[in-house]
Amino acid sequence: MIQQFLPALEAEIKQQRLGEAPVELYEPIRYLMQLGGKRIRPVLCLLSYSLFKADWEKVVSTALSIEIFHNFTLMHDDIMDKAPLRRGKQTVHEKWNDNIAILSGDVMLVNAYQYLNQCQHLSLAEFQHLLLRFNRTAAEVCEGQQMDMNFESRSSVSVEEYIEMIRLKTSVLIGLSMEMGGILAGIEAEKAQVLYEIGECIGLGFQLKDDLLDVYGDPEKFGKQVGGDILANKKTYLLIRALETAKGDDHQHLQAWLAMENPNPVEKVASVTQLYTDLGIRKETEAKINQYFDQAFLSIDQLNLQPAQKEALGKFLAGLVDREV
Amino acid sequence: MIQQFLPALEAEIKQQRLGEAPVELYEPIRYLMQLGGKRIRPVLCLLSYSLFKADWEKVVSTALSIEIFHNFTLMHDDIMDKAPLRRGKQTVHEKWNDNIAILSGDVMLVNAYQYLNQCQHLSLAEFQHLLLRFNRTAAEVCEGQQMDMNFESRSSVSVEEYIEMIRLKTSVLIGLSMEMGGILAGIEAEKAQVLYEIGECIGLGFQLKDDLLDVYGDPEKFGKQVGGDILANKKTYLLIRALETAKGDDHQHLQAWLAMENPNPVEKVASVTQLYTDLGIRKETEAKINQYFDQAFLSIDQLNLQPAQKEALGKFLAGLVDREV
Repeated sequence: MIQQFLPALEAEIKQQRLGEAPVELYEPIRYLMQLGGKRIRPVLCLLSYSLFKADWEKVVSTALSIEIFHNFTLMHDDIMDKAPLRRGKQTVHEKWNDNIAILSGDVMLVNAYQYLNQCQHLSLAEFQHLLLRFNRTAAEVCEGQQMDMNFESRSSVSVEEYIEMIRLKTSVLIGLSMEMGGILAGIEAEKAQVLYEIGECIGLGFQLKDDLLDVYGDPEKFGKQVGGDILANKKTYLLIRALETAKGDDHQHLQAWLAMENPNPVEKVASVTQLYTDLGIRKETEAKINQYFDQAFLSIDQLNLQPAQKEALGKFLAGLVDREV
Repeated sequence: MIQQFLPALEAEIKQQRLGEAPVELYEPIRYLMQLGGKRIRPVLCLLSYSLFKADWEKVVSTALSIEIFHNFTLMHDDIMDKAPLRRGKQTVHEKWNDNIAILSGDVMLVNAYQYLNQCQHLSLAEFQHLLLRFNRTAAEVCEGQQMDMNFESRSSVSVEEYIEMIRLKTSVLIGLSMEMGGILAGIEAEKAQVLYEIGECIGLGFQLKDDLLDVYGDPEKFGKQVGGDILANKKTYLLIRALETAKGDDHQHLQAWLAMENPNPVEKVASVTQLYTDLGIRKETEAKINQYFDQAFLSIDQLNLQPAQKEALGKFLAGLVDREV
């Protein structure tokens, strides 16, 4: 069944209902939606739904609202971050221009709400609760992006602040994806909350794993340049913890690399990586990631699922967690 | 009763429910919402509602969704148009920066949906119809803004294209404001459609009157610089019709003013205004405006209102229509 989710979602994306004119407004949406991606969020939504109900086909359009929302955030974030590439292709503001990326993004957010509006089997109260959760999460994702931008110009960021930023920017939407599946299946509020928490933990583990792979990933498998965060002095979990942990020479050494203009990139990546390893940051980060993932797996028990469903969920999440790219 | 709408809306705006942090995200929303304005859209929504039901207080929050949406479009349009001022004050992207205006605008659009979500007295089907109409209109407003931007770089625009652009950019939202009042009051679809059409006509008349007042407005009363559109070679209804109508010398004369670099502004405004008058464009535009307003007033009869309600609506619309600012 899980194998059918992705093809069903891709088919729905192919026939995404958008306006026709002006083309400048709608072409960028099709372009971005069709750049691919693993569609993890709507797949998680369909998976959550299917833990409780068999007829997952009827919520495919509604699940797609989260994927459209996610891509809307990418379109606008890429303008703000002046990112030239997204999934190896030109970003919308590069291929067209900033104004088109702003306005296409706006209409994309509206389109996400129209997909959410496809769900017709709930009561008014249930639907409005879903809309409230969608709205709250959408605002939180924007809050996370603003925190992320603010961190760039700050001299120091605490671990707590960093975790809160990635929770808002990334994890709440993964949480909502799973919760939405439960809400659409009509389960009790407490269980939907458990689904949310599982998703949130998975999201936190995911983002920290991104930070880790950016330093320790296998260059053969990892899509981006290994060491990119180090070269950009990005305040990742690893750098924040290294700055907190390093003493004496190590601290000066790290600060020197951060302050150096035009460093040799190979040397900088090698030295900072070695420092992270020596300081125990690699192990610590791995432990933190496992802590989030373990917490997610432990929560599965609270859902009181049938054995088959429990196994399906556990297997799927394990597959996500083990990724090395 | 109508006199109570604006204070009720202003009170609701004062206590607008927004997030707290990061402040960069929420301050610009409060700033823009509190710059004032006539709140015509939510007032029209409450007015429409009160034509059919007395308890308008219960839909004030829902009506506010349109005002929040409208202000969201202003925040993003001002970035795209590089506008320095809005209602005589700095625009958000000027006071903060482009990124903050993009992201604050995004969260503002989400907030508009949360206000729409305040309405709790409809059936699921009625609420989803309202959401569908909101979504469709929101997308149309973006389409109108994109057309407007496209027109700037085009050498010529037809009257039909121009009317379609202002219909999308301005009128559909005025139409929705009135329609929403009807939907919230639970009236039949045909009557809600009539309300929409009244609002759309008023909106079209309004926008053309803006074009007219920019040329012929009383400088003492008109808020902006009279002749601003002429100086900017803005493709307004008047310029488009003048280019279509002018022959021989008049046409060359007009083209010369359009092409002139660094013209004397007083002379350019005076000459082009005189040309418009000589070509009969002033009279023609006035006739077109009255045609839209007359159409709006004629449609009122189709609503089968009680005499008191009919008079209230007629009087309010007449007040809107007669404005000279």
